[in-house]
Amino acid sequence: MKVVGIVAEYNPFHYGHLYHLQSSRSLTEADCVVVVMSGNYTQRGEPAVVSKWARAEMALLSGADLVIELPVAYAMGSAEYFAYGAVRLLDSLGVVDAMCFGSESGDIEDLQAIASILADEPEEYKDLLKNHLSDGHSFPSARQKALSGYLRGRHGKADLTRLLKSSNNILGIEYLKALLRLDSKIKPVTISRIGSDYNSTELSGKFSSATSIRNILSVNQWRCAKKLIEASMPTKALSVLEREIELGRGPVFPSDFGASLISLIRRTPVDELRSLPYMEAGLENRLKLAAEKSGTYEELVSNIATRRYTGTRIQRILFSLLIGLDSRKFAYFNSLKGPSYIRILGFTQTGRQLLSSIRGKTGLPVITKTADFKTSDTPGVSEMLALENAATNQYVLGYENPYYRTSGSDFTQNVINVDGSTIK
Amino acid sequence: MKVVGIVAEYNPFHYGHLYHLQSSRSLTEADCVVVVMSGNYTQRGEPAVVSKWARAEMALLSGADLVIELPVAYAMGSAEYFAYGAVRLLDSLGVVDAMCFGSESGDIEDLQAIASILADEPEEYKDLLKNHLSDGHSFPSARQKALSGYLRGRHGKADLTRLLKSSNNILGIEYLKALLRLDSKIKPVTISRIGSDYNSTELSGKFSSATSIRNILSVNQWRCAKKLIEASMPTKALSVLEREIELGRGPVFPSDFGASLISLIRRTPVDELRSLPYMEAGLENRLKLAAEKSGTYEELVSNIATRRYTGTRIQRILFSLLIGLDSRKFAYFNSLKGPSYIRILGFTQTGRQLLSSIRGKTGLPVITKTADFKTSDTPGVSEMLALENAATNQYVLGYENPYYRTSGSDFTQNVINVDGSTIK
Repeated sequence: MKVVGIVAEYNPFHYGHLYHLQSSRSLTEADCVVVVMSGNYTQRGEPAVVSKWARAEMALLSGADLVIELPVAYAMGSAEYFAYGAVRLLDSLGVVDAMCFGSESGDIEDLQAIASILADEPEEYKDLLKNHLSDGHSFPSARQKALSGYLRGRHGKADLTRLLKSSNNILGIEYLKALLRLDSKIKPVTISRIGSDYNSTELSGKFSSATSIRNILSVNQWRCAKKLIEASMPTKALSVLEREIELGRGPVFPSDFGASLISLIRRTPVDELRSLPYMEAGLENRLKLAAEKSGTYEELVSNIATRRYTGTRIQRILFSLLIGLDSRKFAYFNSLKGPSYIRILGFTQTGRQLLSSIRGKTGLPVITKTADFKTSDTPGVSEMLALENAATNQYVLGYENPYYRTSGSDFTQNVINVDGSTIK
Repeated sequence: MKVVGIVAEYNPFHYGHLYHLQSSRSLTEADCVVVVMSGNYTQRGEPAVVSKWARAEMALLSGADLVIELPVAYAMGSAEYFAYGAVRLLDSLGVVDAMCFGSESGDIEDLQAIASILADEPEEYKDLLKNHLSDGHSFPSARQKALSGYLRGRHGKADLTRLLKSSNNILGIEYLKALLRLDSKIKPVTISRIGSDYNSTELSGKFSSATSIRNILSVNQWRCAKKLIEASMPTKALSVLEREIELGRGPVFPSDFGASLISLIRRTPVDELRSLPYMEAGLENRLKLAAEKSGTYEELVSNIATRRYTGTRIQRILFSLLIGLDSRKFAYFNSLKGPSYIRILGFTQTGRQLLSSIRGKTGLPVITKTADFKTSDTPGVSEMLALENAATNQYVLGYENPYYRTSGSDFTQNVINVDGSTIK
């Protein structure tokens, strides 16, 4: 059985995701598509618009065979950390032949060239990076400048740094870097974001971004929102979204946590703020001051943000605080060099078959029933699950329907079992 | 100048309060009425319906001359602690001749009889109390049973314990007990809750309780609520309430803090919950469990409550947690034997004159500009003010209008200055 891996958030699942999923399968001639998916929080440092269970279901109803959760410490991580966690997870399955990722550049050679510099970190590059950082640039901007400086005159490839201007390329480079570091046998394949389907006027409007769909959901009641987004989402994914919204389990937005976050920061000592991931000296005071003068989530973020501190980084810090992810835990997870377990969110029949091969090949525990792993001898397993549960217990407080705000669903929810044969 | 003292919450100010205020003045032939008032949190352990500034203004527009804040550790305290703090504050002014409090029993002798038992705590009474508490009774119920046992056969006054069934009598007894303990020269005067005015059919509906007014505010939009409560509130107090609501600074309800509290308890370690005031062994686990399964404030409280743990006690614990009042701070304030300062919320011209005499007689710092006391050599002053500010910073997050949710108003708000001559 040929297996292709995908890393995704599906926040929510739309036609762009479907295209990527189907292309991944056809380009690699795979029999089985494995998705590593963010849980209830995403790489932008935000709670997802609907739960991981609903998003896994959307994926399984749309062509994925197996959905594995990317633990929250990685899912909310910087591009490097996110990509490393996801690739490590795919690699550890022991069955994945290729991984596909979207990229504004279809040329994998160019991305590889940058990835190997970033993976090797030659001294000259490191010095340049350090200088640009101390000039007050944000990490992404400093990195681009350092790479540009390093490449100048080398290989005649200085213009490669333009690739770093797109977030998909940045993630792609990080995937490649992680594959290099892990010396993985998984073959990377890029899917260009610019294909004929995308340019066709007939389809214009069909490929809306997840961000634009969330924006529509945030300012419209469902009845109106549905009309505006139904052309952008596969019917089955739309039905799952509709069911969740009708049950009062979404849409969840970061702003729903504004009062809790402001209340929390106001009562949290500066020392404790200082010990959050993605924090640096001085930023804890900005957090504290911003919480004092802000009345809403939007105000809070914009009062903290500067050129150096991006909104995404700030959101990661805020939601790390909310879910109880401090730098001690973060460092501990880091020391484990990747996710401690393979946690299954859902599967089709094909996915279930693949699971048997995975169990035979992986060195990590495969978890379908989390409650059995509340205590575990494998380092990090119970700690990562406990954090996942804590994260979910905060997440559900964003639900409109109080009935679903109860905690512990990470230990009670069954794996989503979808008969995929109706789709493929 | 003859001065009478009152202890009140004015949550919100209504005709019952006006009657009490006017009766206090006339019964004692006072020239000046001093009110010790709860700040942003009340004795039921709840955030007040509008801010302390608005409630002080209501009082000053309705006949009070000077409003002094009861620090939050006392204001949210049990009847004993609340009464002790308030009486201690009145006593420390050095200018108060009498204090008036409402009581279902007009007979101060009966209340005094009980107060002296409670103040002296004879061994027999203490043993009885201990037994009833270990039988699982709540403190109020155990105390009533112990008193009843103690009084049986003594003085032929066993039926006095019926007095303990009313919350106003309980507070009255605590005021008397505090006066006894402090050996205060202040003369206690009771105002019977049952006067001709109260029974008059003409006035039926006029004397609504503050609780019923808050209930109306909680289930109606202001336009409707106003019609239902306008007969129960003096016009000027009603106008202040209306202004606050129109500005989006109220009405504030405990349920507005549901998500923040549930979020907070879910992420607070059990050890930390254990160290809250009014906590006892085992209750911290009930808090934790209740937060896991509750989606709203109402569910949270009812999931914690038992016969032994009253709703009021639970609310005190919850909001102590929210504002950061732990048992270490609580014990420290207790060790100071009363409020550390006289913090003025507002005055009329008469009140301002009285303030000069107070400054000459009291041993405590008189605070009209809190910012000057952020650091202070007097024990407890800066700590109590810091807690007050922290409490306010959480309170304002209950405002509908985000503009007013900024923190620090305890250090920026001016004393309310009302020209009382237009009223009296």
